[in-house]
This record gives sequence, C-alpha cells and structure tokens, in this order.
Amino acid sequence: MKPKIKFILFEPSHPGNIGAAARAIKTMGFARLCLISPIKHPHPEARARSAGALDVLLDAEVFDNLQDAIKDCGLIIGTTSRTRRISVPITNIREAAPSIISEAKEKEVAIIFGPEKSGLINQQIDCCNQLVNIPSIGSYKSLNLAMAVQILAYELRVACQALPSAIRARNLASNAEIELFYMHLNQVLLETGFLNPKNPKQLMRRLRALFNRAQMDENEINIMRGILASYKTKQ
Amino acid sequence: MKPKIKFILFEPSHPGNIGAAARAIKTMGFARLCLISPIKHPHPEARARSAGALDVLLDAEVFDNLQDAIKDCGLIIGTTSRTRRISVPITNIREAAPSIISEAKEKEVAIIFGPEKSGLINQQIDCCNQLVNIPSIGSYKSLNLAMAVQILAYELRVACQALPSAIRARNLASNAEIELFYMHLNQVLLETGFLNPKNPKQLMRRLRALFNRAQMDENEINIMRGILASYKTKQ
Repeated sequence: MKPKIKFILFEPSHPGNIGAAARAIKTMGFARLCLISPIKHPHPEARARSAGALDVLLDAEVFDNLQDAIKDCGLIIGTTSRTRRISVPITNIREAAPSIISEAKEKEVAIIFGPEKSGLINQQIDCCNQLVNIPSIGSYKSLNLAMAVQILAYELRVACQALPSAIRARNLASNAEIELFYMHLNQVLLETGFLNPKNPKQLMRRLRALFNRAQMDENEINIMRGILASYKTKQ
Repeated sequence: MKPKIKFILFEPSHPGNIGAAARAIKTMGFARLCLISPIKHPHPEARARSAGALDVLLDAEVFDNLQDAIKDCGLIIGTTSRTRRISVPITNIREAAPSIISEAKEKEVAIIFGPEKSGLINQQIDCCNQLVNIPSIGSYKSLNLAMAVQILAYELRVACQALPSAIRARNLASNAEIELFYMHLNQVLLETGFLNPKNPKQLMRRLRALFNRAQMDENEINIMRGILASYKTKQ
C-alpha cells in the first residue's frame, strides 16, 4: 500500500524552492505538495526548477492556514534544526523514518517545513506530534529548504523499501478531533479555575506537547472527552 | 581524524548547481569542491545559491581534465543512476558510506558527479574503483545534480558520526511518581463517576497506555496532578 504523505511548505519565500521541492519529492516517489501562504506562487522560477515534476507543482494544494492543510492528518511531523524548550520529542530522520512510513500506511501523515529564514515557530510546533531533524555539522547548519525536503523524502523512500511488513495499526485520531479535544480541555480547565485566563503561562502548550507525544487514537480521544464531560455532569 | 573527501563536478552546465553543491557539502561538514571544465564559472548565480558557503565556492579547484583532479586520490567513486554493462560494482550509497569514510581516513577519496543531462560516461566510469547510486523510484529518476551532492554528503556525514541520537534529555518522572499520578487519576475518576467500580472494563489500562507512551517528565506530572486536584477544590 502506498504511504500517504504530504509535504507541507509553510510560507516559503522563494519560488525556486517550491519547484525544487516538487522535483525532490517526485524523485522519491511521492506526489503531494501543500503550500501555506507562499509569498510568490505561481511563479515561472518554480516551474523551471520543477523540471519533470511540473505535475506535482501544478497539483500542489494552496492554503492560507496550516490547520486546513492538516485537518485530515493523523500524524503531524515538524522539521527543525534547533532544540526546543517545551518537550516535543526530536528524533533524527534516520531513526524516525520507519515509524513514519508505517503510520502513513494507515493515516495521512504531514511533514511540515518552515520558512527559509526562520523555520517553524511555536505556533506551528504546537500542532506537531513529533519533530525531526537532519544530522548536519555544528558550524554551518544552513540547509536549503528544498535540500531538506530532498533528504526527508529520500529517507522516507529508503524506509519504504526496507519496511518489514508486520506493523502495528492503531486508528490514530485526526487532527480535527484532537483540536476539538484541546478546546474541550481548555474549557474545563477554565471552569475548574486551574487555567487562569489572566495568566495562562504555557499551560495549554505544555499539555499539547504531552498529548501530542502520546499520538492518541480515536478510542483514547473518546475516553478523554468522556472524562472531561463527566466533570461537568457531576457539578 | 577528518575524512579527506573531495566532491568533483564533471562539466556542470548550470552555475546555480555549482553554488548549491558548495552549500550542500558545507552543511555536512565537508569543504573540498572540484570543477572539471564547468560551462559557466565563475558566475553570479553560483554565488547567490552558495549562500553561507561562499568560501567553499571560492576555494573550488578548477581543472580542464578529470585525471589532474584525481591524481592524488586513493579511492575514486563515481555516481550513477543507471546500471552499467561493464562490471564496475554499483552499491547504494547507504551501504557504501561506512567503507568510503573509513578509506577517507587514510587517503584522499574523490566522489565524481557527471553533467546534469547525461551523467558520467564510460570514459569517466573507467577511472572509478566503485560506483554508487541513490535509491529512488522507478518512474522518475531525474534527481537534480546539487540534490545528489546533498544526499551523498549527508550519507557520508551520517556515516562519520555513526549516528548520534538527536533526542535531548528530559527529566523523566520516576515510576513511583507516575504510579502516584495513576492512583490520583483513578480516585478522581471514581469520584466523578466516569469509572464504575462494578464495571471498570479496561479504562485504567487504556489510560496508562496513553500516558506511558507520552513518557511524562516531572513538570508534566505536576501539571496533571494539579489538574486532578483542581477538580476536588472546585466541588
């Protein structure tokens, strides 16, 4: 079965990188590219750099926000070159690739790449179940965006080919279901007074990191929603 | 000891690829680029694409024939996407990288990339001790030249590092703390009525599986205990 993976470029600046990313994923047998608020798109430089992957470029879906692009995804992977304070797990792509591929046989998986200059910021990181990085060298880490897409796509391709067939299959919850859970959690924490709206600190971000790491399935989401609802009934 | 590897581009057509190749090798900790009869060099597009690797680009050695570039090398590796009639061994780069790196600790190693359109032809192949390819997908093999350089450099870098794990240390909660959390959770669920002691089903086991997967740290345990305690205070 073909792994369901979409490569998402978040606010890419350079159209050349968009075209090169389309080519990069096609060389590794993938086809789905999403663009979130690209600065210049469509653009002749993107077409030129896409070479034989013009089909992937023309089929790219364009969104004006990340949520719409990932709402059908069961596993959201962010790419980063930095370490992070809040504990979203960071794994290098070599180690992470086999499990990403096995999830992608069951559910849509999104791989998100940040803008060229800044990379992903916290607002996007907080949607991710997992972060991956690319091993590089200390002094000069400035990997080009399309190059990063190429290496990720390459590692995922190698993992596809190497994959042993016996895989666990959990029915991971979609991002939309998970966001509804976070809204519900937020609401209950406001009601109990544990979350102070005047001083929320990092509470919801920390809870998101915790539950995102757990990669909840649909059954677990239902349990957690039930627990939140039971608080209210009791009152 | 630093591996002695030079990346050789044979008759590259596009100056953008030369600059991007300089950047690609620098991100992976290499520095030596050689150009054999580049069509356009030097060129502003190469400078632009080299980004922070202008030093590698400016230091690139230029030759008008391959022999001069490889005469000090003890191991010559050609890159190819095709199979060859004459039996130069072809290995994929994932498998070949460790032995290339171990050779490169003793002697100069050259990695040769052919022109964008044609790749290496027999005359250059016949100088190679070994050929490597990049696993890609059947229908569209047209990997960009600089992308191929990036993947090779990445594989060699990973082989150098023998893959250190990128996971940063979190202060994971002790099992005793986690058990206290589960006891607390169990107690609150009994109080809310969500957990029916006459018919507990698998509820606590399912919740343990969820939170165990998340591998909570001490801070997160404290947050979760705080949430459970806030339920009680509110009543």
